[in-house]
Amino acid sequence: MNPEPVSRIVPGTAFQRPNHPLDPLTAAEIVQVSTLLKAQGPSNGLHFKAIGIIEPPKSKLRAFLSSEREGLKSAMLPRRASALFYHRGTSDLFLAEIDLGQKSVDKIEQLESRIHAQADIDEAVEIRDLCLAHPKVLEAIKKFKSVNSRGSSPVQISQERSIHCYIFARGKHPGSNHYDIPLPFAPVFNMESKKLVEIVTLPTGSGFETNEDATYAPHAAKEYHHELHGLGQRNDLKPLIVQQPQGVSFSVDGYLITWQKWRFRLDFNWREGMVLHDVTYDGRELFHRLSLCEMFVPYGDPRYPYSRKSVFDVGDIGAGVAANNLALGCDCLGVIKYFSFAVTNSFGDPVERPNAVCMHEIDDGIGWKHTNSRTGAVSIVRSRVLVLQSIITVGNYEYIFMWHFDQAAGLHYKIQATGILSTAPIDPGTTVPWGTNVNEGVMAPFHQHVFCLRIDPCLDGDNNSLIEEDSVAMPFDETNPFGVGYVTEKRLLSTSGHSDSAPNRVHKIINPSRINKASGRPVAYAIHSPMKQMLLAHPDSWHGKRAKYAHHPFWVTAHRDKELYAAGDYTYQSLPDGKSDLDAWAARGDKTEDTDIVVWHSISLTHNPRPEDYPVMPCDTMTVSLKPSGFFEQNPALDVPQSKQSTNGSRLVEDKALVAAVEERSSHTRDSRL
Amino acid sequence: MNPEPVSRIVPGTAFQRPNHPLDPLTAAEIVQVSTLLKAQGPSNGLHFKAIGIIEPPKSKLRAFLSSEREGLKSAMLPRRASALFYHRGTSDLFLAEIDLGQKSVDKIEQLESRIHAQADIDEAVEIRDLCLAHPKVLEAIKKFKSVNSRGSSPVQISQERSIHCYIFARGKHPGSNHYDIPLPFAPVFNMESKKLVEIVTLPTGSGFETNEDATYAPHAAKEYHHELHGLGQRNDLKPLIVQQPQGVSFSVDGYLITWQKWRFRLDFNWREGMVLHDVTYDGRELFHRLSLCEMFVPYGDPRYPYSRKSVFDVGDIGAGVAANNLALGCDCLGVIKYFSFAVTNSFGDPVERPNAVCMHEIDDGIGWKHTNSRTGAVSIVRSRVLVLQSIITVGNYEYIFMWHFDQAAGLHYKIQATGILSTAPIDPGTTVPWGTNVNEGVMAPFHQHVFCLRIDPCLDGDNNSLIEEDSVAMPFDETNPFGVGYVTEKRLLSTSGHSDSAPNRVHKIINPSRINKASGRPVAYAIHSPMKQMLLAHPDSWHGKRAKYAHHPFWVTAHRDKELYAAGDYTYQSLPDGKSDLDAWAARGDKTEDTDIVVWHSISLTHNPRPEDYPVMPCDTMTVSLKPSGFFEQNPALDVPQSKQSTNGSRLVEDKALVAAVEERSSHTRDSRL
Repeated sequence: MNPEPVSRIVPGTAFQRPNHPLDPLTAAEIVQVSTLLKAQGPSNGLHFKAIGIIEPPKSKLRAFLSSEREGLKSAMLPRRASALFYHRGTSDLFLAEIDLGQKSVDKIEQLESRIHAQADIDEAVEIRDLCLAHPKVLEAIKKFKSVNSRGSSPVQISQERSIHCYIFARGKHPGSNHYDIPLPFAPVFNMESKKLVEIVTLPTGSGFETNEDATYAPHAAKEYHHELHGLGQRNDLKPLIVQQPQGVSFSVDGYLITWQKWRFRLDFNWREGMVLHDVTYDGRELFHRLSLCEMFVPYGDPRYPYSRKSVFDVGDIGAGVAANNLALGCDCLGVIKYFSFAVTNSFGDPVERPNAVCMHEIDDGIGWKHTNSRTGAVSIVRSRVLVLQSIITVGNYEYIFMWHFDQAAGLHYKIQATGILSTAPIDPGTTVPWGTNVNEGVMAPFHQHVFCLRIDPCLDGDNNSLIEEDSVAMPFDETNPFGVGYVTEKRLLSTSGHSDSAPNRVHKIINPSRINKASGRPVAYAIHSPMKQMLLAHPDSWHGKRAKYAHHPFWVTAHRDKELYAAGDYTYQSLPDGKSDLDAWAARGDKTEDTDIVVWHSISLTHNPRPEDYPVMPCDTMTVSLKPSGFFEQNPALDVPQSKQSTNGSRLVEDKALVAAVEERSSHTRDSRL
Repeated sequence: MNPEPVSRIVPGTAFQRPNHPLDPLTAAEIVQVSTLLKAQGPSNGLHFKAIGIIEPPKSKLRAFLSSEREGLKSAMLPRRASALFYHRGTSDLFLAEIDLGQKSVDKIEQLESRIHAQADIDEAVEIRDLCLAHPKVLEAIKKFKSVNSRGSSPVQISQERSIHCYIFARGKHPGSNHYDIPLPFAPVFNMESKKLVEIVTLPTGSGFETNEDATYAPHAAKEYHHELHGLGQRNDLKPLIVQQPQGVSFSVDGYLITWQKWRFRLDFNWREGMVLHDVTYDGRELFHRLSLCEMFVPYGDPRYPYSRKSVFDVGDIGAGVAANNLALGCDCLGVIKYFSFAVTNSFGDPVERPNAVCMHEIDDGIGWKHTNSRTGAVSIVRSRVLVLQSIITVGNYEYIFMWHFDQAAGLHYKIQATGILSTAPIDPGTTVPWGTNVNEGVMAPFHQHVFCLRIDPCLDGDNNSLIEEDSVAMPFDETNPFGVGYVTEKRLLSTSGHSDSAPNRVHKIINPSRINKASGRPVAYAIHSPMKQMLLAHPDSWHGKRAKYAHHPFWVTAHRDKELYAAGDYTYQSLPDGKSDLDAWAARGDKTEDTDIVVWHSISLTHNPRPEDYPVMPCDTMTVSLKPSGFFEQNPALDVPQSKQSTNGSRLVEDKALVAAVEERSSHTRDSRL
């Protein structure tokens, strides 16, 4: 049986012709790839897992981008794509490389049997439907006296390509919170045969014991949807509207974006979602490529089957695949530019990801200020920030990913976690030390989210190094007679490897041969990120072996073209082979001093749920800042115009006349209030 | 000679009658205090250092506030004030307590001679003028072949009440950056006799040596003022206007503020500036009193006289005294409420601090979001935040202090550092390991800012405790057979003392006898603050002895009414007496379990200057968050209305017609552009 695709193609902007080597793959190119491959495939057809662009080799790309920035015309670099697919209904997995210009298949390679492709939505829905129609599952549900049961949350297990279904009961409302009724058993399906392997009874007590005869104890629901939670809605929140009467300050040419001395290219692929290329400020090169290259979500419940619960949300699913369709006035406020992209479904048809990235400006408070105390002269500028945002839904969780560009040459990567906690059933009156009860019979296990930001720098060129810099108290002796002195100590990572955090330790990317004229020291960008606990799973556990990048916050490797993903190319039920992940690349001991390096930053969020995170979680925000640290000779935001009331049009609360006038003019907003 | 006051009284809102025990001191009350005391004083008059309110004893205040919240009418509590003053021209320092209702002086006490009052602006200006008119200083300036020299930055030294003047040359423009021309000598004046004590030659080489015959080597200036820096102004930044056509969502009754289930009282005094009292959310008590109670800025240059360079900006100067007059559209965008307050000058005259606190709402991105993958139903709310802001100028530096109230019952204290780096002269071509050269001949020494946030909690009442909570991996054994489990471990601070940070360690204030029905654990608020290096000065150095609070990030004490300031009441040239500061109070070993406690959080910013921080520094931001952590049974922001385009009125970049229409309507903003 060939199932029908769940996701269907929507024509849109993603169909335009590419006119740059780094333009995202178009819908037409996806069709081209799948058509070429289907022509060669077996009669049963192909099950496509991914179609993605193969970016040009960095050596060629750097030359192209450099010419382009100088205004020179270069020949378009060849566009190439890769496709990952099964022969449908088998576990035979193939990787193909296609030349889009030549319309030719360059290579088709069958991958080792230990490698599995990521989950896809068509397959997940198919398994969900099979699961919920399976007689033994229905019997288990019946036995459990369950209400109308639906919903599944796949988690991979074992070495056979398999899927683990958690079952939840739901209400009829489209916003009903089925995570509030987790059932205490989990069917496991083989993904090749689509057969039920077993039904695992979940532990629901304070320890490892299971209870085959658990019965359903109804509890008062906790709902997040406004029509269901029963709290009504606050009626005292007045509208706040952001206007840019003269339009926006950025300009867009295809995927080339310029704003306030910044210039960069936006890109998007099925796996990493948003990617930034060729980032410069005031004409100086900063970053060749920036992306979220992986994330891992392991759970801290030690009991089987939860011990296997973990997802590489980027490698196992895809941040591009999971991207939300962003909505004006909801996901973004102000004057907004949206970008849409194309990914593939399992049939090789392009599927649009409409409005997957939004871009707009925000006011971010004061940029800098000084009052000359002697004369009373006030100098002040506000901080305007350019925001690029993408939001993904991965089952229960939502992640908001943002790049914030500021006017002082700072670039900030913000991650917000929201959505719904992963839940598990627990016997009433019971608690566990590895989770928090969030409703009667509902436990949310402790877990971590370890993101990996891949930073390919080019500070004034490719020859860069990574250093650690610590602030160190001087000894209280004749060199420091008053005991107050302190200095900085630097350690250069001259060969590939990792580096840990320490309070106030700053990791800096430097160009050792470019000296800042003011400070006399090499030009540098610092990576500011709060010190966090890294992966809590044991290094010898499967989690520890599969997500080695998550053991240390900073890594440096010598650049190689195909080393893009910290946990390797294939993460689904991955078995480490000791050569395909960041840990292996770092262990090579390549020279990383004054050369073309890649810096990898693993950002860890340890999330021990609060009741306040349920039934939907207020955003929890993490920020990593890339800030010039002796890259410029003075404040790069000096020339931002003085902040003025005449431009900013603020109002006093007391100014009733003005407020009334505005109210009249804006009566459309009043009429449409909730 | 009795100098004239530099700062003069401005009638304003600060003159209104107080109608609550916690209302800030009014101008009329300041007059009342100084008049009562002057009537008793010596013929030479009084030199007032501070006039502040004495808040009612907590026991009485708690009862009053509780009745008030229940809508009951209580008798007004007596208003009392304190005054700190010298007999003018002497070092005889007195503390008086005044009953404002009875119009009586309750007590006048002469303080020990080791105690000095803080600096004041009248005195600083007087010394500056004396300094720059002194023949020996003029001779030194002449010898140095200086240009028109002006400006002084006082720093205290030695045990006699004295002032240390650093001399800078300046241009004629009111925004000229005199910190760009630091001269290599520093006159020291006795503050009682107003006599020159000595002129210290500053070290300007790479070590401790000084050069008496240093000559002035002119360098290209680095200026921050728009008319001086020579860069012009960016002309591609389009206006961004925040409108609230239906007005604001907060309400103000005197100093009582309510907004989105929050209710609290705003207060302000000469020392701490902004203070919050009686903070509740949805009718539940959270914090009795919140304030920035101290900050210390020690410098890391080990050489005399810089080894003495350090300021307690709260205790030595006063965050209220130094508060800026905030300007509409510059310091705050949107619809703004301003508050003005009164402080005293050295003659006991009230001086207004107009617009010292501003309040407004901002949009802070997404509050929470979830898309039901099965049905596509999107639930999303935006996060509205109420901001209270105060900005102080302390010589070269600016600090922005903000409280951000969010809709999910989170309260965030934000500190931004901006303004100008403290600078020192350095020989051309020389570098030092404890500072960064920011211009030719100009060095900015490494330094720290250690703030102390005083948190007087009352989570569901006074009986609270402080705990540390760590996430700890389980041993990889039969209790954790897969090596993935982790749990939390808690440590209760049952007696007063301090607590250090660790990665992911969370400090929580709990009410042990109130159990959260969802989690089954005591209700709690967590203090989230990034882990930082604490004071780098040696504990046995003067800095280390004077700012003991800066050695540890968290402290807990049993509440006592007069224990308000972490480094003690008198910080100016303070000598530790082992009983008057936080370290001493914590050392008492008082019971701090399930009782009325105070939590002190020392927030450390280690600032090793970048050239990009000069000639004016882009804001560097630190955030401490007080977030419910099992205080509520579910997300407190569930009932925030769904975010809608019809209310939020965003626009597409492509929507030229709409943009044009708005442009026409808002032509006033275009005309007034820079």
